[in-house]
Amino acid sequence: MKQMDVKQSLSSFSEALNLRISELLAANDDARSPPQLVDAMRYAVRGGKRFRPFLAAECANLFGLPLSSCLDLACAIECFHCHSLIYDDLPAMDDDPTRRGLPAVHVVFGEATAILAASCLSLIAFEIIAEPTTHHDPQLRTWLITELAAIAGRSGMAGGQLLDLMSEGRSRKTNLARVERIHSMKTASLIRYACLAGAKLAGACGQDLTALAQYGNAIGLAFQIADDLLDANASEEACRPGQDTLRGKATYVSVVGTHAARMMIEKLADTALSTIARFGRRGSTLADIVQLVVQRSY
Amino acid sequence: MKQMDVKQSLSSFSEALNLRISELLAANDDARSPPQLVDAMRYAVRGGKRFRPFLAAECANLFGLPLSSCLDLACAIECFHCHSLIYDDLPAMDDDPTRRGLPAVHVVFGEATAILAASCLSLIAFEIIAEPTTHHDPQLRTWLITELAAIAGRSGMAGGQLLDLMSEGRSRKTNLARVERIHSMKTASLIRYACLAGAKLAGACGQDLTALAQYGNAIGLAFQIADDLLDANASEEACRPGQDTLRGKATYVSVVGTHAARMMIEKLADTALSTIARFGRRGSTLADIVQLVVQRSY
Repeated sequence: MKQMDVKQSLSSFSEALNLRISELLAANDDARSPPQLVDAMRYAVRGGKRFRPFLAAECANLFGLPLSSCLDLACAIECFHCHSLIYDDLPAMDDDPTRRGLPAVHVVFGEATAILAASCLSLIAFEIIAEPTTHHDPQLRTWLITELAAIAGRSGMAGGQLLDLMSEGRSRKTNLARVERIHSMKTASLIRYACLAGAKLAGACGQDLTALAQYGNAIGLAFQIADDLLDANASEEACRPGQDTLRGKATYVSVVGTHAARMMIEKLADTALSTIARFGRRGSTLADIVQLVVQRSY
Repeated sequence: MKQMDVKQSLSSFSEALNLRISELLAANDDARSPPQLVDAMRYAVRGGKRFRPFLAAECANLFGLPLSSCLDLACAIECFHCHSLIYDDLPAMDDDPTRRGLPAVHVVFGEATAILAASCLSLIAFEIIAEPTTHHDPQLRTWLITELAAIAGRSGMAGGQLLDLMSEGRSRKTNLARVERIHSMKTASLIRYACLAGAKLAGACGQDLTALAQYGNAIGLAFQIADDLLDANASEEACRPGQDTLRGKATYVSVVGTHAARMMIEKLADTALSTIARFGRRGSTLADIVQLVVQRSY
């Protein structure tokens, strides 16, 4: 029942988010923007689970902030996420021709337009966050910008993506610590940021923020392990190797096996739940989200 | 004599800038950053004329701000410029194997690392600007961030780069208005931003800012026409077509010819000089910079 509730919340949240992303992409569009660049940006932000912006909204809601007041931040986070997906799929990176069930951006629009659209989606994220409509206090806005830039750079998403590429073909030599480092940088960092940024926008501070950072990190890693398991399961059912195996990627499954990977998800779920115990019943949606992530892997 | 003075200023400014860029790249570097990503970033910011950050510093100096107080902003502008150069040189874009007299970043480090290093240099620009060390007032810092994101996106640098790529092989069909639009978006926008941002950091406002925006736009376009002429001259001397001609790029030279291109530079120089007449003798370095740009084309 609870899973239904959180899925319904996510679904109605996604509708509001999609509408606002469209508005934000349309705003500031001037006659000088090449139409195909704008089309590529719109194409890149379509679909998706909207997991990261939903987390931001729920962490803001935990401290009483209504959805309408954190929707712009949520849109910025989703735009930033989509920019990183375009990069991941490029021929020079994972060379993945599909994304979210459709051809990848570079397949539809060409590589040059894809790279520029990714760059523009990253820029629009900063543009949105810097606006007073995101939050009245410029000090808080610069905090959000500094943190986003930091978790996205060489010690975060970009660094993790490079380590991930470097691990290809070396999955047997890769140890667990390295896989954790890669996924903590590449995947968990933006999920952790979404939790922190949403809470911070709503005025959270101190131990509450620390708890949500730990929560974000734990479900970020669990989310990635579930992804690894999904890839492994899909390949088992189809009787052919999945994308990760084909590329010799270092994943949790390739390093510790399916059973241990599932145990790790359960352990991370426990960690996530214990960090939000301090919020009592107020944290029930965040607890439901943990269950969503766990169930993803089955 | 004046040209010697401004060249000496630029040279000593470059030394200070290079030192500070090294410091800023070293700061926040943690053990998790893949060394080759950090190496690629350092490699990408080496050399260069430092024209844009110098303009920012001189526009700040016009309103009494010492170099030490605008060095971080200047570094952010140069990092952002270098990020765009990495993109421009990629195989999917201009496919240029050299930059600043050495192999391009993607040639040395591979395409994936180049794309990620470009992304990191763009992020570090925002990170630097968001820091209180750049300016004490967070409101001003968010203004600098919003403007940078806006001039770099689909109506600015990224949009101009795409229009430039789309013009390839169509140089004869391209009219002057289109070339101006491309270069205004692709090149002049960051030069204009450097002037505005430096002045704004020093507390300039109103008509002074408007004048410097016009100045930046005029020398930005003149700078690009000079570039087009340099490419054409180099190819004439070497008795083989230059890079622009080889790619069938739409340049000022290909559209209006060498003579008319030179006349346009002179006209833009006059515009630039007239916009800074309001500053009297205080604007003498900015006037010298105009002459530097004009002389570049010979």
